[in-house]
Amino acid sequence: MRGSSSHVLSLLEEAENKERKHIMVHVMDSPGENHLPRVYIQDASGHEGKEVEVQGWLANKRSSGKVAFLLIRDGTGLMQATAFDGDYFNRDKLKSFKAVPLESSVIARGKVKREERAPGGYELELRDFRLLHAAEEYPIQKKEHSVDFLMERRHLWLRSSSQHAVLRVRNRVMMTIHAFLQERGFTLIDSPILTPAACEGTASLFEVPYFDLGHAYLSQSGQLYMEAAAMAFGKVYCLAPTFRAEKSKTRRHLTEFWMLEPEVAFADWVDNMELQEKLVSHVVQEVLEKSREELETLGRDTRLLEKVSPPFPRITYEEALEILKKKEFPISWGDDLGGDEETAVSEDFDRPLFIHHYPASVKAFYMQPDTEKPELVLNDDLIAPEGYGEIIGGSQRIHDLALLEQRLEEHRLPREAFEWYLDLRRYGSVPHSGFGLGIERFTAWVCGIQHIREAIPFPRQIYRMYP
Amino acid sequence: MRGSSSHVLSLLEEAENKERKHIMVHVMDSPGENHLPRVYIQDASGHEGKEVEVQGWLANKRSSGKVAFLLIRDGTGLMQATAFDGDYFNRDKLKSFKAVPLESSVIARGKVKREERAPGGYELELRDFRLLHAAEEYPIQKKEHSVDFLMERRHLWLRSSSQHAVLRVRNRVMMTIHAFLQERGFTLIDSPILTPAACEGTASLFEVPYFDLGHAYLSQSGQLYMEAAAMAFGKVYCLAPTFRAEKSKTRRHLTEFWMLEPEVAFADWVDNMELQEKLVSHVVQEVLEKSREELETLGRDTRLLEKVSPPFPRITYEEALEILKKKEFPISWGDDLGGDEETAVSEDFDRPLFIHHYPASVKAFYMQPDTEKPELVLNDDLIAPEGYGEIIGGSQRIHDLALLEQRLEEHRLPREAFEWYLDLRRYGSVPHSGFGLGIERFTAWVCGIQHIREAIPFPRQIYRMYP
Repeated sequence: MRGSSSHVLSLLEEAENKERKHIMVHVMDSPGENHLPRVYIQDASGHEGKEVEVQGWLANKRSSGKVAFLLIRDGTGLMQATAFDGDYFNRDKLKSFKAVPLESSVIARGKVKREERAPGGYELELRDFRLLHAAEEYPIQKKEHSVDFLMERRHLWLRSSSQHAVLRVRNRVMMTIHAFLQERGFTLIDSPILTPAACEGTASLFEVPYFDLGHAYLSQSGQLYMEAAAMAFGKVYCLAPTFRAEKSKTRRHLTEFWMLEPEVAFADWVDNMELQEKLVSHVVQEVLEKSREELETLGRDTRLLEKVSPPFPRITYEEALEILKKKEFPISWGDDLGGDEETAVSEDFDRPLFIHHYPASVKAFYMQPDTEKPELVLNDDLIAPEGYGEIIGGSQRIHDLALLEQRLEEHRLPREAFEWYLDLRRYGSVPHSGFGLGIERFTAWVCGIQHIREAIPFPRQIYRMYP
Repeated sequence: MRGSSSHVLSLLEEAENKERKHIMVHVMDSPGENHLPRVYIQDASGHEGKEVEVQGWLANKRSSGKVAFLLIRDGTGLMQATAFDGDYFNRDKLKSFKAVPLESSVIARGKVKREERAPGGYELELRDFRLLHAAEEYPIQKKEHSVDFLMERRHLWLRSSSQHAVLRVRNRVMMTIHAFLQERGFTLIDSPILTPAACEGTASLFEVPYFDLGHAYLSQSGQLYMEAAAMAFGKVYCLAPTFRAEKSKTRRHLTEFWMLEPEVAFADWVDNMELQEKLVSHVVQEVLEKSREELETLGRDTRLLEKVSPPFPRITYEEALEILKKKEFPISWGDDLGGDEETAVSEDFDRPLFIHHYPASVKAFYMQPDTEKPELVLNDDLIAPEGYGEIIGGSQRIHDLALLEQRLEEHRLPREAFEWYLDLRRYGSVPHSGFGLGIERFTAWVCGIQHIREAIPFPRQIYRMYP
């Protein structure tokens, strides 16, 4: 809003004068013209000693008779604005600050001053203060609220410092992933959301009536499309919403979540694990370095995150079974590993753990079998430490047409919907591998938060799609 | 696949030996061990004079008796591999190249040599050549195919140089948008796809049964959620798939497309247009500079693109009507502008054109009316030149609770689904603005292609959701 503050102000004044004069509290000394630069709080340090304007919301306030402290947030940071009994304010004006409701929108003008004790290290010596819109009583208070109460108000809860921090980390995770892959020559290829067939069975699909073509299904994975794209672009990825109509209510499930799915032509399952551990390590280290403030806000113990560097420990499914048996889990060969099992195995490791070579019978139809033990597949699950469970599932894909045809039949998948996918094995088939990384699980782990529903701006669960 | 080629090869050999020996053509002199660096074609120039391995697909071939030229693509570029009758190949071997079908996957080894006449400026002096998988007869030939034929084979068509180029430009557009906004302090906040209510009317919504909660609708816009997020983060955007169940078959429509939606708190409609013209200009200039090869492949005339720099011309809706009347369009005040009208108006300008201040009656419920002429709204449409139509729609949003309530009623929208949206006007309301930019329309314009269906990897139209 550089240069046009007065325009905005006049609009608001007009609206306010008409309809809501009764709730307005004007606390301004010299309305007049404003030629001060509008500054975002994160940039305040560059304006030390200068007069600026900050536009934001009142996050907190306290005052004695002689001085009032107003904590202002503008989405980029928090800044304390200080008003003294003196040249610009008198005791009556200071008192009137008490009437300004929290989360009201405000415009504050004053001089930026170094102040070690203030959040962010700078404060604003107030000269003018204008209330743009006086908030109604804000429903989210400092006290504890239930998660349901907060989720029902997710549109407001986003303003709180912890939620703000989690979603800033999420932003960092997404951007670091893009940068890592782009630097390595990957092309972003968006897979479709509306798809004619299921990648991993139909039980957990959302179905959408689609014109005269019957039904479409919301994508559970872009992988099959990424395989096609890998044959055209070599190295590709998608980063997009994904849907699972599972009736799961665990803290690790959302019905709508974002997934990264890279796919590389001429890459085997070992190349695949190497890419995964490099990517995961890089993103974690970038978050540690560049989102330090956010992790501090969240009180994240970062000692284990600092250890995240390649290579990650690798064990086979069968080795994982041995660990589980020692821990007296009632599990036998051929059983899949659930969240509890993953946690139990990963407890023995202080870094993300690869478990590879699962039984083909518990995994998806497209996974390449091991040549020597064809009952096992060339897959990997990457288990985060600290009980955060599977954050990646990956595999080498079947490159042989006849074997893939056989698998489709065994899994009773509708062959006509997969003809195009079979084509990839007809025209220059190559070994290729890829994986899926759940953005919210990853973010929840890095942030150290318990439930992934806080790692997405507007979570969708089986009992929630509001707001 | 650095360092693990032999692993991959052994897998393939094994599969091939078992099942498809009959279609294999081995054209290799010294199988033995391979310790050559695997190089992507785009990086070949850095290996001049060195022996390398290239893994890819056979894109074209020609040979005389003494020399064979094999054009190899690996997704990052095209490279000519040349085999001579001499130390490494004899005439019989050269002849056998004729049997290698196009789009077969191959591994080529040889020395990188500067060669002005070759695509990319470098060629590979072949020493070894291995056929990994012999393709069946490739359905896409050099001849003209119908778009339907090609779209039915979209998974293969992606390999052609024109489609490859368009989607590489799309990748550049997306990445440049992210970088532009992130550098300016925007936070990526993903809006939900499954939503409880429609933003712009229910006629064109995809409906999805949602557990015990009735129906969800596929998002037509993340804007309302971006407004909530802007009050928490100041400057936000989403870049995500968007759905319109419109029965439109024009070259400008898809049922699933990607949309960028930035939203800024404390920004008015003028700030909004400034952000749009800066973003659009920056992205176009970046594509011109960094995707030059792709634009050349597409035969794009870039003269008009070079002129794209701020400020863009701005006319009001009423001025647009004047232009249309001069051009004898049968249009009167209060009519919306369709694609034909947009094109006719924009023909008078050689750069993207803002048309602002539309009648409120043809625009969405949330747009802020002009103070002095409340029958008009503070919106803008940005029309691309050369007939590419609207690429952006933006507006300042209503900040006043009472007015927004009134608009919901006038538009007969279900108030209970919008309570959270109304909350944004209860707790520190501020002037705010944003816009939506259609990624595929933008990409189609920059690439100079006629139909936006080629600007998305796997298009969804009312009569197509395969592959």
